[in-house]
Amino acid sequence: MSIRVGVFGYGNLGRGVLLALRACEDLETVAVFTRRDPATVDPVISGVPVYHADRVVEFVGRIDVMILCGGSATDLPVQTPALAEHFHVVDSFDTHARIPEHYDRVDAAARAAGKVGIISVGWDPGLFSLNRLYAGAVLPDGRDYTFWGKGVSQGHSDAIRRVKGVLDGKQYTIPVEAALDAVRSGEEPTLTTREKHLRECFVVAKEGADLAAIEQEIKSMPNYFADYDTTVHFITKEELARNHSGIPHGGFVIRSGRTGLNGENRHLIEYRLKLDSNPEFTASVLVAYARAAYRLAADGAVGCKTVLDVPPALLSPMSPEELRKALL
Amino acid sequence: MSIRVGVFGYGNLGRGVLLALRACEDLETVAVFTRRDPATVDPVISGVPVYHADRVVEFVGRIDVMILCGGSATDLPVQTPALAEHFHVVDSFDTHARIPEHYDRVDAAARAAGKVGIISVGWDPGLFSLNRLYAGAVLPDGRDYTFWGKGVSQGHSDAIRRVKGVLDGKQYTIPVEAALDAVRSGEEPTLTTREKHLRECFVVAKEGADLAAIEQEIKSMPNYFADYDTTVHFITKEELARNHSGIPHGGFVIRSGRTGLNGENRHLIEYRLKLDSNPEFTASVLVAYARAAYRLAADGAVGCKTVLDVPPALLSPMSPEELRKALL
Repeated sequence: MSIRVGVFGYGNLGRGVLLALRACEDLETVAVFTRRDPATVDPVISGVPVYHADRVVEFVGRIDVMILCGGSATDLPVQTPALAEHFHVVDSFDTHARIPEHYDRVDAAARAAGKVGIISVGWDPGLFSLNRLYAGAVLPDGRDYTFWGKGVSQGHSDAIRRVKGVLDGKQYTIPVEAALDAVRSGEEPTLTTREKHLRECFVVAKEGADLAAIEQEIKSMPNYFADYDTTVHFITKEELARNHSGIPHGGFVIRSGRTGLNGENRHLIEYRLKLDSNPEFTASVLVAYARAAYRLAADGAVGCKTVLDVPPALLSPMSPEELRKALL
Repeated sequence: MSIRVGVFGYGNLGRGVLLALRACEDLETVAVFTRRDPATVDPVISGVPVYHADRVVEFVGRIDVMILCGGSATDLPVQTPALAEHFHVVDSFDTHARIPEHYDRVDAAARAAGKVGIISVGWDPGLFSLNRLYAGAVLPDGRDYTFWGKGVSQGHSDAIRRVKGVLDGKQYTIPVEAALDAVRSGEEPTLTTREKHLRECFVVAKEGADLAAIEQEIKSMPNYFADYDTTVHFITKEELARNHSGIPHGGFVIRSGRTGLNGENRHLIEYRLKLDSNPEFTASVLVAYARAAYRLAADGAVGCKTVLDVPPALLSPMSPEELRKALL
């Protein structure tokens, strides 16, 4: 019997979830839910029914796990607890500072309803969190570093677009190779914000705009760019469309640590992601955890979980016996 | 209250376990057990009592988790099930083909006694297995590759030492950079044994030995060297001691996969270990899983587990709340 999955929200992430579900034989896509007019939504997988979000409760008993594809700012804080009253839920809540609070709300709702919720699923938070945990548990005497990129930052791209005279723009976060090498050396360097990442901006200016003023405003923007070495390239609308339409991302979690009687042996654990499509990869992680949510519930679990709580074997379609034989 | 740990077997691995236990405040080292005369064993951490292995049952009720540090060929198949009758147990059983059988024996013994056993803990099997699982679950349309090294292979070093005219020797397994790059390209290459790894041998010959004959015999040795590009360096006993006394190891688990409507987006997940001391790192993994074994048992679990079954959070000394706040 396959696990019946609903997709709540249909942007880049929801689209990626439909594609990821197609790749899993044991998961069945029941429906997409949207706050827009369903007639205006054309799902990437043809034949998947689309309903208005208001109708989601009609699917109680017909959907096992709901994958939430809304944003962390305003959607998920409301939607995940609300839907956990009716379904097992999985979300990608990624506002790091507010995770404890989100956890508590989802936990209360899911427990009251006898459901399982897995929050903050994706790659950071998500797979990167797992790697920080495993590496730290194995090498307690050490230090870990997270680098992001090369990849598109949506927040920084939005910030560029708000600058006067800017028509469109895209920002790449790029880890500094020298910083990566310093970390890999095992010297446990202390690195400033500027030493860890570069910011590269591709900007389409409006006709007649003051390019020098735009560049200056971007480079001096507090929080977003002022603390970084930032480069600004002015390009045409066509170049932006041709060369910068993708949503790549990735990064590194590296822990260096020491063992031995006097810390004489050094060890390096490095985890790297290089992703052509940030939303499609995040969606693929969500789908694996949808499988796990269903299985956790089948084992009698209730309440909120994170990737840190989920036994890895529950993510795979393979049986425990197959996994032991094939992967150990 | 700290978790009371015993160490069964005292070679390089047992030594590493004592060092790793010292780095964990929540774990207490109760005793080392050896089949040798305890008076001849001088533990790396002074003050740790050493007992003969025959006396281990006297410690029922005084030791929560026993970490087994024997070999996979003959020690662990007997010792792990036997000790699981009295203690929670953790071992590093690494004979891949025999893991299912070992699992069944440990499971039966641990279940009968109400104990938890975690087998095949270390980095391969262990952390590498976890990475194969996570990466495969997230990118079902893909392929994974494991590379080992640069590192010392005990089995291959032993094989060199059995060659006529050889006094001593050490063998390094080295991943081929071109193969790593081919895998990272996302092309999912099919690689032969020879294309993936090199073997480099440092050999001390006996006086008057036929060096050409030694080199020829090593390079043509079936299973061990014949399928690889092997280089043989003759060095002095002093050089071997000075430059090749370490036990470094490591390797890579890389999965490349595709998502998208037509597999148009490529993703790469790369996990790398670079270890100065193979036994000390393996020991550090064993100790983290000893903590998990105790906690699993406290949660009511019984029977045999592998790293694939253990919720990651159980490995860390931090509480679930701290972990969510610090690592997610």
